[in-house]
Amino acid sequence: MKSTPEALIGQGVEHIDTPAAVIDLDAMERNIARMAGFARQHGMRWRPHAKLHKSAEIALLLEAAGACGHCVQKLSEAEALAAGGVRDLFISNEVIAPHKLLRVARLAAELAAHGGRLSIAVDSLEGITGLAAAMAAMAAMGSDADIDVLVEIDVGQGRCGAAPGPEAAALALAVAAHPYLHFAGLHAYHGGAQHLRSVVERRAAIAQAAQAAADTRALIEAAGLSVPLITGAGTGTLVHEATSGVYGELQAGSFLVMDADYAANEQDAAQPAFEHALFIKTQVISARPSHAVCDAGHKSHAIDSGLPLVHGLPLRYANGGDEHGILYAASPDAQLPALGDTLWLVPGHCDPTVNLHDQLIGVRGGLAQGVVERIIHVDARRAVT
Amino acid sequence: MKSTPEALIGQGVEHIDTPAAVIDLDAMERNIARMAGFARQHGMRWRPHAKLHKSAEIALLLEAAGACGHCVQKLSEAEALAAGGVRDLFISNEVIAPHKLLRVARLAAELAAHGGRLSIAVDSLEGITGLAAAMAAMAAMGSDADIDVLVEIDVGQGRCGAAPGPEAAALALAVAAHPYLHFAGLHAYHGGAQHLRSVVERRAAIAQAAQAAADTRALIEAAGLSVPLITGAGTGTLVHEATSGVYGELQAGSFLVMDADYAANEQDAAQPAFEHALFIKTQVISARPSHAVCDAGHKSHAIDSGLPLVHGLPLRYANGGDEHGILYAASPDAQLPALGDTLWLVPGHCDPTVNLHDQLIGVRGGLAQGVVERIIHVDARRAVT
Repeated sequence: MKSTPEALIGQGVEHIDTPAAVIDLDAMERNIARMAGFARQHGMRWRPHAKLHKSAEIALLLEAAGACGHCVQKLSEAEALAAGGVRDLFISNEVIAPHKLLRVARLAAELAAHGGRLSIAVDSLEGITGLAAAMAAMAAMGSDADIDVLVEIDVGQGRCGAAPGPEAAALALAVAAHPYLHFAGLHAYHGGAQHLRSVVERRAAIAQAAQAAADTRALIEAAGLSVPLITGAGTGTLVHEATSGVYGELQAGSFLVMDADYAANEQDAAQPAFEHALFIKTQVISARPSHAVCDAGHKSHAIDSGLPLVHGLPLRYANGGDEHGILYAASPDAQLPALGDTLWLVPGHCDPTVNLHDQLIGVRGGLAQGVVERIIHVDARRAVT
Repeated sequence: MKSTPEALIGQGVEHIDTPAAVIDLDAMERNIARMAGFARQHGMRWRPHAKLHKSAEIALLLEAAGACGHCVQKLSEAEALAAGGVRDLFISNEVIAPHKLLRVARLAAELAAHGGRLSIAVDSLEGITGLAAAMAAMAAMGSDADIDVLVEIDVGQGRCGAAPGPEAAALALAVAAHPYLHFAGLHAYHGGAQHLRSVVERRAAIAQAAQAAADTRALIEAAGLSVPLITGAGTGTLVHEATSGVYGELQAGSFLVMDADYAANEQDAAQPAFEHALFIKTQVISARPSHAVCDAGHKSHAIDSGLPLVHGLPLRYANGGDEHGILYAASPDAQLPALGDTLWLVPGHCDPTVNLHDQLIGVRGGLAQGVVERIIHVDARRAVT
């Protein structure tokens, strides 16, 4: 289906159809300014993760505010953003299939031809050998592009990544041995630490990650190879990476609109006060004595990090399936909404929520009385390959 | 992003890119034949829920096997399927917004003009009045179409639906009082019963639902209004609705490909032996001593009803986020897959899984050695409005 936007530019928020994904542009821009200021203050590069917004338009906004480039999680995300004019991309993930590695090499050549740069993570010798073969094939076709390669180390998440220390150091040296691969540093993102609830736990997890990264760097440098960068950090922990003395680049992406789940973290005093900026507008389509039912279910927002919050109202959202949310009073004196009322939900996890939508309705002037200023296309929606 | 299919027609399954949603066409067709036979045997109409497949192509396959029409959950799903040539649609849900009700009325007129029929659920006087006003507006523009209206009753799910008995009966009479609304019966789907694990629980839940529907029908008929149909049932309970003597139509949709979660139900002896037919093909992109990581996370399959199963292998899939699955050995002697291996996942819940994909790759001849026979477009992907 060719989907029509849920609103037209210039319309008031009251005309946005439901359910729809709506960005409070003022709040998003305040978040960007806070993040830019934070990175400047700590002398850090920032390369926000585009797996949140999936939009070339937003990527270019972030660059204008000082972002050095963008992370993506999948090759097809990188291709989609490159098609939208984004020129500096880091695939912060492993690519193994030979046909995909040829696409990686082609994209590296295309970005280089436009003055840009592609970088990618590896965590195996097979991955390095395959990437080198694909880059050599591009070179045989006349490209002189190389590609930045970062060795991913597992600093505690237990997902991808070589073991810090000798295993990772051997991979770094293997990268450096290939003519079209440029060893660019260590990718040391600790996904498992982002939603640890207490500041103490998050600080300890990142201290341990930074130590593992620093030790690995020392080993590699002792072997005579420079480690230009250690990159990592998410919105939940960025204060700790920024003050680690080890990390040089922040990958946080969720700061842009903030997940409901991050609000459940104990906040670091040093953390910029990011605001929720992504909302699902929804309408009550059934009103019963004990509850109301709205038209946004988990086809409108991702529930992997919990159900959405109801913005500004004492209502509890309960799972009503793909297309419904069930609303209960959250306190004895709370009033249920009436049939036809519209409400704003704050999604538990924004990245996969954005993935459910073809466009984000950008509103200027607030959710109560604002106007639709732009329709932001989700260029890398469904880009999983 | 204009997304490219993960495979081309005629390619072997080994060439399907990962991750991708793949339908085993042989298994799906066996499921359709089983469902058609079951409905025939019990003298039931069947109107499978298109919220599962979201595809006009599949809807027409189901009609060829005997389906009398299709359920959808949202107006925009109905519009997308109608654009693909589907002519008999039931919106099994409430629509309240006046601008949406005008679209409902227009679609009713369009389907009627093509020899088709639209029906819709209501559970409030406001909904009936709004629908009647929209149909009257269409009539003023020259349409003589009417619309079938079913009163939804809450038979135990606690979501939408009027209370069975006097409240629902009053709504039925209110429907019948409007010139362009045709009271077509009761929508009595018990979503809460589908995944009750034991046969005894499911039988009891549907017995109670059928009693509530029958009592409501008696009240309405006592007031002089005929109740042509009671419709409901999902894949988890259809044996009980079919043998209730009350229901006349089965709405089950998931039988087509089966959710992993349904496999956790104790099976009714009388239930047709439906097979899993929707799979996510995925590749191992990182292999560690303790686990492997594959490239399908919850952007490739919905996890609202649990994580996927790994088809045919003693592996346990653990949540690795949007883009990764973490695979552990499920028994002490199970072997972890190697880097580059491909695997097949059975999604926990198929409806929202299909919603994540633009196309379903239809394979003939099995997952091991089959060939891509067709690319099925997901016409109503993201159709939430």
